[in-house]
This record gives sequence, C-alpha cells and structure tokens, in this order.
Amino acid sequence: MYITGIGRTKFGILSESIAELAYKAMYEAISDCPISIVDIGAIYVSNFLGSRYMKQLHFNSVISSLLPELRIPIIGIETACASGASAFYQGLLALSRFENVLVIGVEKMTDATKMKSTENLAMAGDRKLDQEQGIIFPANYALIAQQHMMRYGTTHGDLSAVSFKNHKNGNLNPLAHFNYKKVTQDMISKSPVISSPLNLFDCSPISDGAAAVVLSRYRKSSRDVEVIGSDLATDYISLVQRTEITSFTATRIAALNAFNQARLRPKDLDIVEAHDCFTIAELVAMEDIGICKSGESKDWVRKEKTALNGDLPINTDGGLKADGHPIGASGIAQIYEIVTQLRGEAGKRQVDSARIGLTHNVGGVGGTAVVHILRGLSS
Amino acid sequence: MYITGIGRTKFGILSESIAELAYKAMYEAISDCPISIVDIGAIYVSNFLGSRYMKQLHFNSVISSLLPELRIPIIGIETACASGASAFYQGLLALSRFENVLVIGVEKMTDATKMKSTENLAMAGDRKLDQEQGIIFPANYALIAQQHMMRYGTTHGDLSAVSFKNHKNGNLNPLAHFNYKKVTQDMISKSPVISSPLNLFDCSPISDGAAAVVLSRYRKSSRDVEVIGSDLATDYISLVQRTEITSFTATRIAALNAFNQARLRPKDLDIVEAHDCFTIAELVAMEDIGICKSGESKDWVRKEKTALNGDLPINTDGGLKADGHPIGASGIAQIYEIVTQLRGEAGKRQVDSARIGLTHNVGGVGGTAVVHILRGLSS
Repeated sequence: MYITGIGRTKFGILSESIAELAYKAMYEAISDCPISIVDIGAIYVSNFLGSRYMKQLHFNSVISSLLPELRIPIIGIETACASGASAFYQGLLALSRFENVLVIGVEKMTDATKMKSTENLAMAGDRKLDQEQGIIFPANYALIAQQHMMRYGTTHGDLSAVSFKNHKNGNLNPLAHFNYKKVTQDMISKSPVISSPLNLFDCSPISDGAAAVVLSRYRKSSRDVEVIGSDLATDYISLVQRTEITSFTATRIAALNAFNQARLRPKDLDIVEAHDCFTIAELVAMEDIGICKSGESKDWVRKEKTALNGDLPINTDGGLKADGHPIGASGIAQIYEIVTQLRGEAGKRQVDSARIGLTHNVGGVGGTAVVHILRGLSS
Repeated sequence: MYITGIGRTKFGILSESIAELAYKAMYEAISDCPISIVDIGAIYVSNFLGSRYMKQLHFNSVISSLLPELRIPIIGIETACASGASAFYQGLLALSRFENVLVIGVEKMTDATKMKSTENLAMAGDRKLDQEQGIIFPANYALIAQQHMMRYGTTHGDLSAVSFKNHKNGNLNPLAHFNYKKVTQDMISKSPVISSPLNLFDCSPISDGAAAVVLSRYRKSSRDVEVIGSDLATDYISLVQRTEITSFTATRIAALNAFNQARLRPKDLDIVEAHDCFTIAELVAMEDIGICKSGESKDWVRKEKTALNGDLPINTDGGLKADGHPIGASGIAQIYEIVTQLRGEAGKRQVDSARIGLTHNVGGVGGTAVVHILRGLSS
C-alpha cells in the first residue's frame, strides 16, 4: 500500500469556507500524483466539529457536490482529534476493494468564540464524567502533567522545551499556523497559565485547514511512500475510568501492532510525528510509542535528542503546537509531513537520510490512538 | 461475507441512555450468534446527531468504555440518515482484515424539543443552499412529491396508501415505535399538513433506538445470511444543485452496482426495506431500485403489490414510518428485518419463502444512498 499524492492548505486563521479548503487540499493531492481524480474509487472524509461550528453534517455529500464527475462511495469518519488518521486507516482497508482511495481531512474552527470552542472540544470527552464536571481538555492534560512530574521528576522546563522545539520547527514550515515570529524561551515561560502546570504555550491552537492524501494499492511513482504498519486502538473515554493516566493504553497497543506489522522496532525510526495537542502529550507519546522508557522522555528532551538535528527528530513541521490543529486535518497533515520528509522534499527542515517515519494521532485524552509507519522508496 | 448475529432495542420514546441502548443491541447481537465478543476484530459505530442532542462526539470511545475487555479498532461513521448502512458497508470492507466485525447504530432523539429536532435534522442538508433558505427536510420531500404528482399523476391517496401499509406492518412488529394502535385511512387523511402535500402521517417520527449486527468472513451457522451485493454512492447534497428531483442518482448507481455484484435483477427480490423517511421516498425508491419503471410506483401501490401478502412486500417491519427512525440505527434495523425474514423468524409478519432481500438507506435528500442485497441460507 502506497501514498502517491499529498496536498494541504496553510493552517491558521483562514478566510476560505470549509468546502474551499477541502477542495484545495484534494486538488493539490491529485496534482501531486500520477493518477487522475476519475481513477479514485472511494473517498474518506475526516471532520470533527462541523455540526457545532457551522451546523453542517453529512459532509461526505458536501464533498460529493464538489466532484460532480464522481458518484463514488464517499464516507465520513469521526473519532474526535484522531479522525484524520482514522480516515487514513479506513482508506487503507478500502484498498482491498479499490485500487486508489482519497483521504481528506478538514476543519474550520476560527469563526467561533473561545468559549464556544472550549465547549465544542469538550465533546471529545464523556458527557457525564468529563463535561458536566468541567474537565475540559487543558484540565485533562494538566492532570496527566501533574502526575508525570510527581512520578518522574519531569519539570515545567521540560514541557517548555517541547514547545520551544516545535515553534522552532514551525518557523521553517511555510504552511504552519505559527511561523511568522520567533518564539523565545521567555515568551513561553511568561505566557498565562491555562490549567496549571500548562501555560498558553503548552497548548495547541484553534486552527482552520485541510490536508489530503491519495492511497494506491500498487506503486505508482518513484516519489511514492510505502505504508508498512497501521493500527488503531481504543480505550475508556475518560481518565477517571482508567487506573493509569501517565500512559495511554491505546497508543501502546496501536504502536506495538504497527511495529509488528512493519517488523521494526522504535530504534529503527528516523522521524516521528507525535500528537502534541499539549506539550505533555508529546512526552507521554514518546514513552508509549517505545522511543524511550516510561519517565525518560524528559532526559531525551534535555539532551535535545528530538530536535531537527537530533537522534530522532519529532514534529519537524512544528507539530500541532506550531503547525496548528485543525482537528479533522491534523492526522493527515502528520502523514503529509512524513511523506514530504521521506521524499527528501522538506526544504529547510529536511532531516538527513530519513527512511522510516511514524505518525501518532490521538482522539480525546487517549480514547482513540492511531499509529502508522511509513517507508520511503526514493534512493 | 455473512451476517451471523443481529440485535436491536425497541424503537420509540425510551428512558435508557444512548450508551445503554447501544450496549443492549450489541449484547443481543452477540448472544444471537455462535461467536463471542472477544472474537470481534473491529467495531463500526453509526451515530448522526450525538453532537447536537447530547453534546457527545468521539462515540467510538464511548463504545470502547462499555467493552473494557477489548481494545480493538472502534470507528465512528457519519453519512446523515444513511450512517447505519454506511457503517455496515465499512464493516464488510473491514472483513478483508478481520474475521469478525460488529456494527452498531444508535440514536437518542426524543429528549429535545420539536424545534431543536428540525434544526438538528436540517444539518443533513447544505448550510447555505438549504438550511439558510428554510428548506428543511419535510419541505425537500414535499417538493419531490409535488413534482412526482405533476409528472406522473401520483395522488395524495397513493402517499397515504404507503403510510397505511407501513402502519399495518408496524402493528405486527413488537419492537416498532408505533404498534399499539390501529391507524385508519381516516386518521391519515385528516392528519395536519406538515409541508404540502405531506401530512403528519407522511412523515417518519423522531425515535430513540439501537440496532447491531455481527459480520463474519466465513459462514458460522445455519441461521447465517449471506451478503451478496453492497454499494454506496453519493450525489450533490442539495436538490437545487440537481437537474432531476423525482429520482435519486445515488440510489440508481448503488442499486445497479449491488445487483451486478449479486448477479440478480430487481424481479429476483422477495422482500425489500426501502428508506421511507417520507411516504414519497418509498415510491421514488421503488423506481430508482428498478422494482418498477419511473412513474409506475403508484400503480403498484394501488394494486397493493407491496403489501405483506403482495408480490413484493416492502417495509415489513413498518419501515421508518411505523418502526421508527432513530437515525444512526435505521440502516442497521433494515438489515435486522431482512435477516429476520430470510431466517423465517419474523412471526406474524413472516413473508412466505423469502430468499432474497434488499435494503436501501438514504442520507439527506439523496446525497448518500446505500444498497445491500442479502440471501438466506436456511432451507
């Protein structure tokens, strides 16, 4: 199974409609590969909050309206913030029936007020156990951060280092939400507290954007990237239902299965896109994916091993933190970045001789996790 | 590909929570088949309006919370009112990877006010082209009915006859939303106008309910039903974007492809579940599926050919009209009914020697259509 085309819009506060954003990303993904739109057998659409932000559901039919030459299966997928990678996962399954499949993820979030966004995003948590108790997402991840600090000696400086690295990478990404201004250690440490110990710069932003990929059963060009591992796992939706909160079972299962499929181990990775909705999430992801042992992610960060020129660069596009987090698109944008890197087309942020990459996309506070392992084919 | 287990709740105004309804239907589907819940490789979840009615998204993780012994892929599917059959369609595709797949559809709608329901349901239509113009769903289908009457001489009596038949069938279905009272021709014709020419009895109700099926790659028991045709097609979301409104292109494509896969023709069908969200929709479906020619559905209805003892019984469970329309569950309840009939387990509403059945599930006003053809295996 191969990724043969990729496309995305800039992420940020955008003026285009959600349909325009989706069209742009799909058009670019098709233009990027040797096949034409009429060769596509099915389309998977990832969108999380259309029903809340713009009173639009049935988004698969909105996409169909944009492509009147096709009357093929187009299907909407929703697994909260993991919707993008889940749609990609479905796309891979659909290659059993179709030779080529398009996956499009899109979200339009910046039209709403901040209060509305908090309420909307909380729907990724349990209505009774989380929402009605006021456990919004920054609070969920703050609880995880507190436990991680207490148990492993992780400091707020370690969290800030993740943010600093991702903003630095974002500055090299022309499509990132935040790339227009240098983010300093001082800006990060002095940013307002959102939910202690998380400050503003520990949190990913509210963004608009779209990303798309074209999948093929057979190799189509020398720029193709092979998908060699793919798994999706689920867990209790709420932290209060779990015995362990500094580790996500769903990530551990999905990563283990994906590595087994790929017949690889974490040390074989050259580059990773980890779900950093909050800085602490990137540290927990490193441990759950198996990049390091539990509690050791802070040591990696202190040694700058995950920097662009480190042993294992993580979130080279800036991650959700700096690239942005238009939810339905985020999981697909991770694939976009790994493909770009494995093709050797990442420009200023190119990682030398990257051959194996991993993407990790999470729904809610670990209720869903999706891991993909990709291999570059170009010499 | 086989359906080996089915389960559903009663449809109607129910006191259970959405999670309780889902659990009940899944438990019954598993209890109905030779395999155990731990043999399930993946679960597809169909829900349309959880984000609006109960501020709950990420429903795949809610389902995961109910099944702590499983940490498998669970994925949410949404294609408006066709979500149920779309999840079933995904379940079939997933049999390429998993031996057994569970599909669960659920909706909880009766807690909201009528006004809220109208607004929520309108999200299956285009935000700008439909919602902002006030083209709510009864209005959409009224436009279709008006055209159908003008073009083909279909009368309001023909529409009422569909309602009368479906309520009569619903009275034989212990799980139907409406089964407790005899619906007379007089009640139908004197019911208030909703959107002319559609009266209250031309419209399906707002219901709660859940339905589930277990799919297997291999035959598991003598009660299994085989899936021999499956297609999903899409179209422009809004009627105003189309040149033809008395026929749904998506239904025509999905039906044609499903018949080709099954190597059957419409005249081979013994029983049909057609998407009768409004009475006119059942007539249009008959024509689009190919049961009769365009404009001839009224003749079939006048001759009572689609009645329980007619040539081709349609909506033997009462259809969306009388069985109810808990949106995420409806497409799966159609499968439930056909399986029940093909197994010969439909009790008072059993159709004699039914062997081939078809289900037809529509999203919005034909923006999505899904057709499945099933074959009974019992002697």
